[in-house]
Amino acid sequence: MGKGRLEAFSDGVLAIIITIMVLEMKVPHGHDLASLAPLLPVFLSYLLSFIYLAIYWNNHHHLMQAVKKVNGATLWANMHLLFWLSLVPFASGWMGENDFATIPVAIYGSVLVMAAIAYFILTQALIGLHGKDSTLAEALGADRKGKISVAIYLVGISLTFLHPYWGCALYLVVACIWLVPDQRFEKRLNAAKKEV
Amino acid sequence: MGKGRLEAFSDGVLAIIITIMVLEMKVPHGHDLASLAPLLPVFLSYLLSFIYLAIYWNNHHHLMQAVKKVNGATLWANMHLLFWLSLVPFASGWMGENDFATIPVAIYGSVLVMAAIAYFILTQALIGLHGKDSTLAEALGADRKGKISVAIYLVGISLTFLHPYWGCALYLVVACIWLVPDQRFEKRLNAAKKEV
Amino acid sequence: MGKGRLEAFSDGVLAIIITIMVLEMKVPHGHDLASLAPLLPVFLSYLLSFIYLAIYWNNHHHLMQAVKKVNGATLWANMHLLFWLSLVPFASGWMGENDFATIPVAIYGSVLVMAAIAYFILTQALIGLHGKDSTLAEALGADRKGKISVAIYLVGISLTFLHPYWGCALYLVVACIWLVPDQRFEKRLNAAKKEV
Amino acid sequence: MGKGRLEAFSDGVLAIIITIMVLEMKVPHGHDLASLAPLLPVFLSYLLSFIYLAIYWNNHHHLMQAVKKVNGATLWANMHLLFWLSLVPFASGWMGENDFATIPVAIYGSVLVMAAIAYFILTQALIGLHGKDSTLAEALGADRKGKISVAIYLVGISLTFLHPYWGCALYLVVACIWLVPDQRFEKRLNAAKKEV
Repeated sequence: MGKGRLEAFSDGVLAIIITIMVLEMKVPHGHDLASLAPLLPVFLSYLLSFIYLAIYWNNHHHLMQAVKKVNGATLWANMHLLFWLSLVPFASGWMGENDFATIPVAIYGSVLVMAAIAYFILTQALIGLHGKDSTLAEALGADRKGKISVAIYLVGISLTFLHPYWGCALYLVVACIWLVPDQRFEKRLNAAKKEV
Repeated sequence: MGKGRLEAFSDGVLAIIITIMVLEMKVPHGHDLASLAPLLPVFLSYLLSFIYLAIYWNNHHHLMQAVKKVNGATLWANMHLLFWLSLVPFASGWMGENDFATIPVAIYGSVLVMAAIAYFILTQALIGLHGKDSTLAEALGADRKGKISVAIYLVGISLTFLHPYWGCALYLVVACIWLVPDQRFEKRLNAAKKEV
Repeated sequence: MGKGRLEAFSDGVLAIIITIMVLEMKVPHGHDLASLAPLLPVFLSYLLSFIYLAIYWNNHHHLMQAVKKVNGATLWANMHLLFWLSLVPFASGWMGENDFATIPVAIYGSVLVMAAIAYFILTQALIGLHGKDSTLAEALGADRKGKISVAIYLVGISLTFLHPYWGCALYLVVACIWLVPDQRFEKRLNAAKKEV
Repeated sequence: MGKGRLEAFSDGVLAIIITIMVLEMKVPHGHDLASLAPLLPVFLSYLLSFIYLAIYWNNHHHLMQAVKKVNGATLWANMHLLFWLSLVPFASGWMGENDFATIPVAIYGSVLVMAAIAYFILTQALIGLHGKDSTLAEALGADRKGKISVAIYLVGISLTFLHPYWGCALYLVVACIWLVPDQRFEKRLNAAKKEV
């Protein structure tokens, strides 16, 4: 089964999620700078979520390049990931409109945790299909970055109950970890090409 | 006539339908867990509809893999299917916002019935184009799953007037039937490849 | 210059236009059938617009199959068409929410006229690029259907000032003319293939 | 790394941005022409933004045709561009709903400036990857058009504080500069093909 339509559909859903989030930034009624001020938290929340969804698209893109085939299980694992990502605009909007209050920040973190777990399940389903000796399995390796991310999210969610800015700070840390481009795939794929 | 743009357009429409549904989950005004509580039925309704649309995308994907060509009739049969699916967000939002009341649950089921019938018409149009001896026709076979689904939907809609939870339960049963991956196409396509 | 991305972008825009229209159907507050009643004109308006956009997608799909190349002028002619089609959800929502009142029906017809003219400009730009002896030019021929459509639209807009149902009836007539699949392209393309 | 998915994702995001902007044009309550009048500035704002996004899509399309490969840096440079373009619907809606008042017009111009800078960064990232002797670098040349645009935007934003129509007029001037098709790429690519 080809991976083309899976990529196309995921691209479509991610493109829409990333774009409709901006609809949470309601046009204010006033026309001075002061009327923009209350939108600042919503804007920051949008910015963070935009970065997260861009990271997911980037990682998905890299992951799919090493994928050779998909089956029913991977289609559903992918849908599961898209489901949690589809909740990001809601969680993001709620967090922004409440000035990064405790519960919304914790819920936002929970959605990120669920998306991270869903991504992990997707990689496992793909490794199961391609075998443990595949380029894909080697490129993913022990997936330290993924595991560390979930740990930081969980610490972030816990500390949110001390002060929500802790949560936001730690979510930002995870984003920074991933913003550094993931060169595992590029290296392995290039290595694999050279061997051939 | 190539099937590529038909797939691309359907992917686009399905990706948008599945994503704009989340807009029905309006960001609540409060910032505690209690303010999320009223959203629970909307969330459950969204979850059910997400699963349904994912199933349709999966089936459409499998179906199109066995398709070799399309004509005007199949384009319109496909549009007809997309029309009913485009009503899912509305029906889903109405059902969720009314705590799964009788009429909204029945209407939701009716939209599912119409989509199932539209999918059936699409398969018939494709079989008509490819011939009754084609891999496509063999893979679809008597389409027992499709027929049973419509029967369960209709029972579900009827029982909804006893209690709406009956309807929801039976719609869930149909979803479970389809969540089990449909291996007819994979088997037939693999068999067809081996014969060649 | 390849036509692939032009098709992909147009598919994306058309898929979104056709789908966001359903957002004009606001979820009603009541949960009985009576609360659906006021939505009937909005639904009918949505149905008509869905059919129109499906027709445009179909025609665009057929047209592009005969196209071998695109240039800057055709990209802009295509954008011009998409602009007018992007106004359909607005015009459709306004018409539906006002129970097919005179001015909204006339405006809706005007948007259809502008879209039809934009489509005509697009075909002329493509013929200019491919030459008057091309398969494309032959397949389009005198484009009687397109010219008749504009004439009927204009009569429809005029009669709307007698009674708006006249306008709706004539818009429906044009839709029916186009629902009959346009076999000019299929015939010509098949003929062209046979000659080769 | 292939450029296909980058193009597909960008097409998706641009198609959605250009289309959801029309949602800012809220259906009016009245059904006479007078009720459309207050929408005129929103419509004009939409028209300007539609043209801008169409220009970006066109330029992106031309740019990508000369691109042979992408890497992590270009993916992020592209995301950065999409981020600023995703703010156009918000800025456009705010400008339209406030009848082109000073601050909204200045903010709109600022978003255009940021998008222009992001586009410049993207071209530099691509030139860095392809080398200064590549067809891409030659086609872009000194990028006078890009630099002049930013200068005009900045003058426009400044003059907005005299009168907002100055800003609008100058934004329109930039749009006109770009509406003239950019033949650098077509010429260079054709030249490059002939040399081969």
